[in-house]
Amino acid sequence: MNLNTLERPVFLVDKSKVLRNASRMVRKARESGVSFRPHFKTHQSANVAAWLRDLGVRTITVSSLEMAEYFARNGWDDITVAVPVNIHQIPGIDALGKTVNLHVIVDSESTAARLGEEIAGPLNVWIEIDTGDHRTGVPAERIDRILDLARLVGRAPGLRFQGILTHDGHTYDAAGAREILSIHEASRAMLQTIKHTLEAGGFSPCLVSLGDTPSCSLVDRFLPPISEIRPGNFVFYDLKQKSLGVCRDEDIAGAAAFPVISKNASLGELVVYGGSVHMSRESLPLPSGRPFFGQIARLTADQGGWTAPLPGVYLSGLSQEHGQVTGPEDFIRSVEIGDTLVVLPVHSCITASLYSEYHVLKDGVAAKFRP
Amino acid sequence: MNLNTLERPVFLVDKSKVLRNASRMVRKARESGVSFRPHFKTHQSANVAAWLRDLGVRTITVSSLEMAEYFARNGWDDITVAVPVNIHQIPGIDALGKTVNLHVIVDSESTAARLGEEIAGPLNVWIEIDTGDHRTGVPAERIDRILDLARLVGRAPGLRFQGILTHDGHTYDAAGAREILSIHEASRAMLQTIKHTLEAGGFSPCLVSLGDTPSCSLVDRFLPPISEIRPGNFVFYDLKQKSLGVCRDEDIAGAAAFPVISKNASLGELVVYGGSVHMSRESLPLPSGRPFFGQIARLTADQGGWTAPLPGVYLSGLSQEHGQVTGPEDFIRSVEIGDTLVVLPVHSCITASLYSEYHVLKDGVAAKFRP
Repeated sequence: MNLNTLERPVFLVDKSKVLRNASRMVRKARESGVSFRPHFKTHQSANVAAWLRDLGVRTITVSSLEMAEYFARNGWDDITVAVPVNIHQIPGIDALGKTVNLHVIVDSESTAARLGEEIAGPLNVWIEIDTGDHRTGVPAERIDRILDLARLVGRAPGLRFQGILTHDGHTYDAAGAREILSIHEASRAMLQTIKHTLEAGGFSPCLVSLGDTPSCSLVDRFLPPISEIRPGNFVFYDLKQKSLGVCRDEDIAGAAAFPVISKNASLGELVVYGGSVHMSRESLPLPSGRPFFGQIARLTADQGGWTAPLPGVYLSGLSQEHGQVTGPEDFIRSVEIGDTLVVLPVHSCITASLYSEYHVLKDGVAAKFRP
Repeated sequence: MNLNTLERPVFLVDKSKVLRNASRMVRKARESGVSFRPHFKTHQSANVAAWLRDLGVRTITVSSLEMAEYFARNGWDDITVAVPVNIHQIPGIDALGKTVNLHVIVDSESTAARLGEEIAGPLNVWIEIDTGDHRTGVPAERIDRILDLARLVGRAPGLRFQGILTHDGHTYDAAGAREILSIHEASRAMLQTIKHTLEAGGFSPCLVSLGDTPSCSLVDRFLPPISEIRPGNFVFYDLKQKSLGVCRDEDIAGAAAFPVISKNASLGELVVYGGSVHMSRESLPLPSGRPFFGQIARLTADQGGWTAPLPGVYLSGLSQEHGQVTGPEDFIRSVEIGDTLVVLPVHSCITASLYSEYHVLKDGVAAKFRP
């Protein structure tokens, strides 16, 4: 494919950057003596997954049963579905659990009871803990409920209690690196207390799984009680992570590419074929407070990569299939209708999810899960 | 499918509401003596399209060449692609133009010249006019450029000049019905002037196509020079249209349905399996200024529809596959894990685009275009 003459929007993946990002995380996990179970919801691709397998990855995380089934079909046999069990999918969970080493998470007595009744097993079960993200999980201070849940799981013949798991999603709201590390430390302390209590209560060993790209990228070393990490976004990174101080421009390994279809020099604006169905409306604020949906780069001459983001050039408007690009006059003048613009995403996981396949730079097409 | 025990997120379509919404627009177009060319980007479904065919619709609008090819495969033979031509798709346009009556739009001399050189034709060409939306189109006051474009088109043996076309997308930023109608009137006046000038310049007849759901829903009658309307969203409507005063709750004909997977009564919150990949991040502001991503309803007892939106209950948070629902304490208490919540979308076109098929109430599955 000639990326300078795009027929339609594509999602570009820079494999060398993915490998660099992934190798760094693999090494840190190994040096810390923790298991590495990356979240594959970011790429949802058997091809990208194979690159991680080559780096030694054997255990993975996904965000739906369907995604677990997709990766199981592609040879992965140790999979955590890191969203609380939907009780209407228990038959599918039981079926998949017979063919791979499947892990699920629970945060409610009612769901744990249903699993205990209906799963023949063996199925690995983790208790999700809310250490401050306030999305899902049993609040960390409710040790009574956590113990009750562990007993429900421990009592069921088909279930194997594994430990406790958390996602510190509140690191995404942090002001920067210092606050992210502080959240991580607070979370670690809460998990330590819960692990001790559970082990004292007979639930030993109690493994401890934690995962969010901001803290996993910033800590130098994973300390006890952490036994497993589950970051996902780090394979691609994005402008959100950069805004948090978690990655640099040159670490961003996934980007959309759109052809220019209209130009309004008097408005200082270009229009690309590429809208909210190709980008998503994830945004960051400009200094003015207005949102932007991506930063613009150009392809390198050999089409093997893209440049640094161009200063002051933004994807500033989105309709269903149109995107509006604003920037300095000299930039707008330099672009012709038909040119390709590369758009670095605000949230790479969501942008990537909108494509049915990826274009891997220099390598061609990578397959992707289509739910 | 039992909608009370959802294995995964689905998009519900209430066919009786679609038929009512569509019949109203068909009737208004007929009574006004204008052509009706609805935009199929909203539903992208051959099944939904067939319901409109039964109401007499024969001419359609789409937002990509691929979508045009999909509907051509499904028996539609008069199709406008209402996004400025991407010059790298000219071979595909030429090929499709040989099998159906294809219409394209241009707003630049460079693209019109390329079409003129490369299209064997015959291909119908419209000049897009910017009457205030400031996305694409030649600014309405640039009559000189509009005439130049018409000459470029008129001179090319493969191209057939049809007329002028606009999308008053700025009606979506209006404060309410009065401002929408005022935008529509201003647009009509500009188009009238341009039509007269073009016809006086020898480009006669000059058809005039206009389309946006807010104005098409609110005007009582389409007046000259309008010869064709192209609304799309009206088949489903949504909370955005409701906020503009364009539709009522009971006109909203498409909604997501998600199973509840977690409950945190102390936070006044439920979590559904259904996130930004199932909903999109289109939002409206709460009175507090915080965004919300949908309003919540329940299924009716017979699963043939859904209730009015529940007061004060919102989809207030989204991650990739989780959605957070907040509401009054008595509502939160009334919902059990495993229950189904219906989520009325802020922008139905984008939410609908995220599904590979629809669940039509009482009718089962409807096929959808997958790009």
